[in-house]
Amino acid sequence: MLEVLQQHLAQNLPFLKDKKLLLATSGGIDSMVLVHLFQQLGYDISIAHCNFGLRGVESDGDEQFIRNYASQNNIPSFVTHFDTNTFANDAKVSIQIAARQLRYIWFEELLQEHGLDYLLTAHHLDDSIETFLINFTRGTGLEGLTGIPQQNGNIVRPLLPFGRTQIEGYATQHNIQWREDSSNASDKYLRNKLRHHVVPILKSLNGGFEASFTNTLNHLQQAKSMADDAAALVFKQVIRDYGSYKHIDITQLKRLPNYKAYLYYWLSPMGFTAWDDIYNLADAQPGKYVLSGDYRLLKDRDFLVLEMVSGYDSGIYEIEENVQKTTIPIGLKLENVHYFEQNHTKNIIFVNKELIKFPLFVRKWKEGDYFYPFGMKGLKKKVSKYFKDEKFSLSDKENTWLLCSGEDIIWVVGHRADNRFRVTENTTQILKIAFLQE
Amino acid sequence: MLEVLQQHLAQNLPFLKDKKLLLATSGGIDSMVLVHLFQQLGYDISIAHCNFGLRGVESDGDEQFIRNYASQNNIPSFVTHFDTNTFANDAKVSIQIAARQLRYIWFEELLQEHGLDYLLTAHHLDDSIETFLINFTRGTGLEGLTGIPQQNGNIVRPLLPFGRTQIEGYATQHNIQWREDSSNASDKYLRNKLRHHVVPILKSLNGGFEASFTNTLNHLQQAKSMADDAAALVFKQVIRDYGSYKHIDITQLKRLPNYKAYLYYWLSPMGFTAWDDIYNLADAQPGKYVLSGDYRLLKDRDFLVLEMVSGYDSGIYEIEENVQKTTIPIGLKLENVHYFEQNHTKNIIFVNKELIKFPLFVRKWKEGDYFYPFGMKGLKKKVSKYFKDEKFSLSDKENTWLLCSGEDIIWVVGHRADNRFRVTENTTQILKIAFLQE
Repeated sequence: MLEVLQQHLAQNLPFLKDKKLLLATSGGIDSMVLVHLFQQLGYDISIAHCNFGLRGVESDGDEQFIRNYASQNNIPSFVTHFDTNTFANDAKVSIQIAARQLRYIWFEELLQEHGLDYLLTAHHLDDSIETFLINFTRGTGLEGLTGIPQQNGNIVRPLLPFGRTQIEGYATQHNIQWREDSSNASDKYLRNKLRHHVVPILKSLNGGFEASFTNTLNHLQQAKSMADDAAALVFKQVIRDYGSYKHIDITQLKRLPNYKAYLYYWLSPMGFTAWDDIYNLADAQPGKYVLSGDYRLLKDRDFLVLEMVSGYDSGIYEIEENVQKTTIPIGLKLENVHYFEQNHTKNIIFVNKELIKFPLFVRKWKEGDYFYPFGMKGLKKKVSKYFKDEKFSLSDKENTWLLCSGEDIIWVVGHRADNRFRVTENTTQILKIAFLQE
Repeated sequence: MLEVLQQHLAQNLPFLKDKKLLLATSGGIDSMVLVHLFQQLGYDISIAHCNFGLRGVESDGDEQFIRNYASQNNIPSFVTHFDTNTFANDAKVSIQIAARQLRYIWFEELLQEHGLDYLLTAHHLDDSIETFLINFTRGTGLEGLTGIPQQNGNIVRPLLPFGRTQIEGYATQHNIQWREDSSNASDKYLRNKLRHHVVPILKSLNGGFEASFTNTLNHLQQAKSMADDAAALVFKQVIRDYGSYKHIDITQLKRLPNYKAYLYYWLSPMGFTAWDDIYNLADAQPGKYVLSGDYRLLKDRDFLVLEMVSGYDSGIYEIEENVQKTTIPIGLKLENVHYFEQNHTKNIIFVNKELIKFPLFVRKWKEGDYFYPFGMKGLKKKVSKYFKDEKFSLSDKENTWLLCSGEDIIWVVGHRADNRFRVTENTTQILKIAFLQE
């Protein structure tokens, strides 16, 4: 497995070489094999462990196990505790989502504070198989069948080509110790049910199932990229984008024999579900419309007009000076700190607190908005142009929030900070702002 | 179920109304429900039953059951016997493929001889679920996950929206009799294993699984149509088609970030499998090449040259006058008959035997080939133009055979006959030729 991983890293993840890697480590077999492999390969690694406090002494045992392993192996380690139940209650999300949110924000903080380059997780082929089957069981589109991505920004999953059997084989061969998570044995979660009852049958029906599945994923990812190409080309012919609303040209649209496919592609991320009504709208009386939770698709004479439902996005939310955390309309964590990172990540920025005026405002973009994208040498850019260049989908644009000081944009939240509020060596008051994404 | 079917027929299959329908009827629950439904709806139906002689007295019992049902219900019926084992041996195909080949040719003959319009089969949603899972288990591309098509020429599957449970419910409610096929209970076939062991779990995990699966299929079919659009657009930019060989422009190709997706889309139907070698070929030394069974992809200076491997397709096969059946290079059945159909189907044509010269020749197309497509009022057309207009893929072209009398094309086999050899009211010697497709 070590040689195959080495080859995989050289071919597909060469940028990890000579980088500082943070390994997310629960103490389970997958992450302990990940750590062992990267020790053998001689990469510069640290490990990070979260104690979510969800399984009492078992959780504390996991933590102790990681602390011991790190000290015995001379690996720098980071450990933190979360009150996951309280956070889930406050944020009104499930325990699983709360745990994910908490750990990824913390991982990102660690990367920044300690100058580490990439977070590695131990997701493997069987996780992708299970994700495929979860989405398939619930109903999905092509994107739900393309597996777990190998890379998402600075999060990399180097074990995706390897199945659970290989990982177990490696663990046995190298006498690797790990902690069994008692919740893995339960059938409480859909994932576990599929893992225990469906995947074994599929593997028994085709001895080469794992390799076949890898090929299937590749082919589906390729087909997805082709559908994306078609959507981008057709978008230009069919849609005029006026920022807060769009015109879909009905004549152009209906030239496409499969125009329903394109409507589905564009409109499904906005929460539309009444597909028959939408497909019929092109031939309906002017004035007819279809609503999703947040959007309206209106039949005009020659166009379908797509816009957000009035009142939804027009809110302007204030953040007072000493607020440390917001949950409405989005989760932000604000913290006075005495360090900063020159390079912002997508979800954490550092700003010069002396330059901003409280209360801050959180709002959606409007026609005419501009900012000075961080890292673009002070160039001014329209927000609409920024969205276009970054290939935002229709719904991406409408779902993106701006953090503002007066009329000035501080942050296109979750995407790009403004250069005007950047921290320099001479800044004395630094505000760190983190976006707690769902 | 009857009302839903009625609605489905009106919305999606309106062309069946007032047509003469032939119902493929094994005697099993699915086909007996199909027959009962179309009786209730008052369509003009006949039923066709094949006795494949594979289950001895059980097969004969099925046949007797159908004969009784038809006579008791005053439904015109057709019954035939096949020596499936002998045919499978002769044609060197599996029993299942032999049975499919035999029955579909016979169904097509029935449609023609009796002036019937459509063949209906009883395939339903669970067949699509099983087909999805079979392909998924073995490894597949997007096209393998898009289910059983609703229509294929004159074959229509009106029960695809309905699950097995609904069909069983309808059978119970209406006290419908059917014959149980003992081989359905066995786990000998992959399909049965998935039906008995995987599908029930998926249904238990999501009570609405059937509806979710229907949505998934729709979304995947839509994504497939978008990938097809992208491939057609990019084809024009990247490939020059010289008939027997093609130039893929490497510079144009490599402008596409996902050019591998397009290479896979075009080349996989030709049997290529060495994808890494193919993907690397664009950067390789001129003269390097990759082979599939039948094709070669050669690196030229600025192009990848795709052509059939010399010797594969250049064969010219003779058919002597009194031959009744050929198997090499393709299966053809030749028969002197005393009737004919004006409208050819894809797989059966009627020609004026007095106008053709024996031996006939079977060969692949070559640059400069032309014919007079049947139904085009005597217009002459280049075969290359015909392929283009009919949207033949690269491999479709190379896999298509021509049946010729001297240099004159009688039939683009499986696609279009030539007008010059058509049968008229005055023709005295009629030759019926059927293509026994794999």
